Amino acid sequence: MGRKEKETLQKSGGTQLKLVMTFPNYGQAILKPMKQERDEETNNNLYYFSDFERHNAEIAAFHLDRILGYRRIPPVVGRLVDVVQDIKDVTTDHKLAQTFFTSPVGNVCFYGQCSYYCSTEHAVCGRPRELEASLAVMLPDLSLAARRTWRSPWRRSYSRTKLAKWESEPDYCSTVTQNPPYNKGTRLVDFIDLVILDFLMSNMDRHHYETFEKFGNNTVLVHLDNGRAFGRHSKDEPSILAPLKQCCRIRRSTWLRLRLLSQPRYRLSAVMRASLSQDPLHRVAPLLAEPHLAALDRRLKAVLETVSWCQKRQKREDGREDEVIYDDMAYLKDTVTPAG
Amino acid sequence: MGRKEKETLQKSGGTQLKLVMTFPNYGQAILKPMKQERDEETNNNLYYFSDFERHNAEIAAFHLDRILGYRRIPPVVGRLVDVVQDIKDVTTDHKLAQTFFTSPVGNVCFYGQCSYYCSTEHAVCGRPRELEASLAVMLPDLSLAARRTWRSPWRRSYSRTKLAKWESEPDYCSTVTQNPPYNKGTRLVDFIDLVILDFLMSNMDRHHYETFEKFGNNTVLVHLDNGRAFGRHSKDEPSILAPLKQCCRIRRSTWLRLRLLSQPRYRLSAVMRASLSQDPLHRVAPLLAEPHLAALDRRLKAVLETVSWCQKRQKREDGREDEVIYDDMAYLKDTVTPAG
Repeated sequence: MGRKEKETLQKSGGTQLKLVMTFPNYGQAILKPMKQERDEETNNNLYYFSDFERHNAEIAAFHLDRILGYRRIPPVVGRLVDVVQDIKDVTTDHKLAQTFFTSPVGNVCFYGQCSYYCSTEHAVCGRPRELEASLAVMLPDLSLAARRTWRSPWRRSYSRTKLAKWESEPDYCSTVTQNPPYNKGTRLVDFIDLVILDFLMSNMDRHHYETFEKFGNNTVLVHLDNGRAFGRHSKDEPSILAPLKQCCRIRRSTWLRLRLLSQPRYRLSAVMRASLSQDPLHRVAPLLAEPHLAALDRRLKAVLETVSWCQKRQKREDGREDEVIYDDMAYLKDTVTPAG
Repeated sequence: MGRKEKETLQKSGGTQLKLVMTFPNYGQAILKPMKQERDEETNNNLYYFSDFERHNAEIAAFHLDRILGYRRIPPVVGRLVDVVQDIKDVTTDHKLAQTFFTSPVGNVCFYGQCSYYCSTEHAVCGRPRELEASLAVMLPDLSLAARRTWRSPWRRSYSRTKLAKWESEPDYCSTVTQNPPYNKGTRLVDFIDLVILDFLMSNMDRHHYETFEKFGNNTVLVHLDNGRAFGRHSKDEPSILAPLKQCCRIRRSTWLRLRLLSQPRYRLSAVMRASLSQDPLHRVAPLLAEPHLAALDRRLKAVLETVSWCQKRQKREDGREDEVIYDDMAYLKDTVTPAG
């Protein structure tokens, strides 16, 4: 068998256009094209389930996840791709190829086939052929490493009118934690970790999360699909934090990391700015506009205030404020004294 | 029969959402809602046949047509309507009513049913219920005053790849003027009048025009449907002027009016600014952003330059530069001396 050529196809599944690039060394990546300028905010009248996916949100989410110490998002990097050389000329997908056209100003555009925003009015266009995109490392094929998809217990209703259970039942957390897999091990605090990530980047679209089947129930969560994060900087979305507020439970390591990132020397916005500046697209434009970075600090403060609120409530109820903190660092307790 | 109630329905036909309002006095108007901010420019990568319709373009076109002395656009006025009181509560159109919803920030939105931009992602939203709209006087019902629809000989191809005949045939005008209705009377110069209006407001979407059937072929053209004008101010579209350049024919009255409007005391942009300031929506925001007004002056200059170019060419060819000017003012020649 000869050397593989580069190839680009549409990725099936999902509602918005994404592509799979296969490289000559058989490596694969998921490509999401730029659709929105950095300084645009999502239209206020759009529901979370109609929002665009943003390539820079995928990239920034990867950096944020790493900074929070999770490392549960597969690497995502920004790239300038050539719409013709890297996509049109190397696709065997006839349906994708058919959607290419030259715009009135001479840019090469395409729109692909998908259920949302795949039409000539929402075409993705190069300038004239150069296009910003995020490239995410593709996980091993499902035949080699099957994954399990878990529906989030705090999933939104995906309806303009219906409320989800967690929005109306004050004691919702206890019904969740009575049942597997949230009734033992670290699943609940794993999930709370994810919730904190989502609140910081204002991602309302976490309907599912995944695990690798081989590792059973006691394994890390994989934080895939972050394209709807970082849509709005001028507003926070407290409902994303509902699981933390309703369950009042957080990993000690996460809590300590958040406190560290709230200190002037390690301010989250500054660490993110520095981290994102290493992405190749940074030379085109900073990956996150400054108001988005500022929002991170404001939201981090809100997370820590929620933990404090939990601790006070716990203390008032049964005098045991440390119920809030799940101690995942006990093994370190002889060597490290956590900061006061 | 009792007094008629106010009623609002969707207007069928056309590709984008428009409504018909019926008032208690049986008057009717066509309503087009605001979809785009005044300072937004149409995306460069959109073709003319994918552009949004703009309510302020309908209003501004009416004023411009009047300033040019044509008076061939039925009156259009801006209004703030209440999305609930003026539309939702008074419609008997079940399909329209079904598309109403409240947006995440509490605005009342709807999207109707049509072939383009009628979806939740392109909803029209009040703030929270107040919506800018254009209201155009509805022409008499077709059963009372039938109209004839004429395909523009300089119609665009409405294809991303095909050229229209007029774009490739240099002698296209002579094939048009050999045949009715362009071979006699004022039809050709009537059409050129319309072309000048369209070039000034950069409307590429004039695929048809209409006349009243009763008046036969020797009648004015009705300049309906101007919602795709005023989409871009930073760019002119010389191809809209092709009929003037290819036929080199213009009414004297139009030519004199254009020359008047290019003089400092009657500058087109200033006359438009003054005229538009009388529209009720002016108190919300000027109907046309300043760059659009400036574009009018720039384009007017281009029209006059084209006429001069025609006159020079004519003179060179047969020494008769006045072939370019169609004299519709002969009846005045004893009383008025046109300005030099």
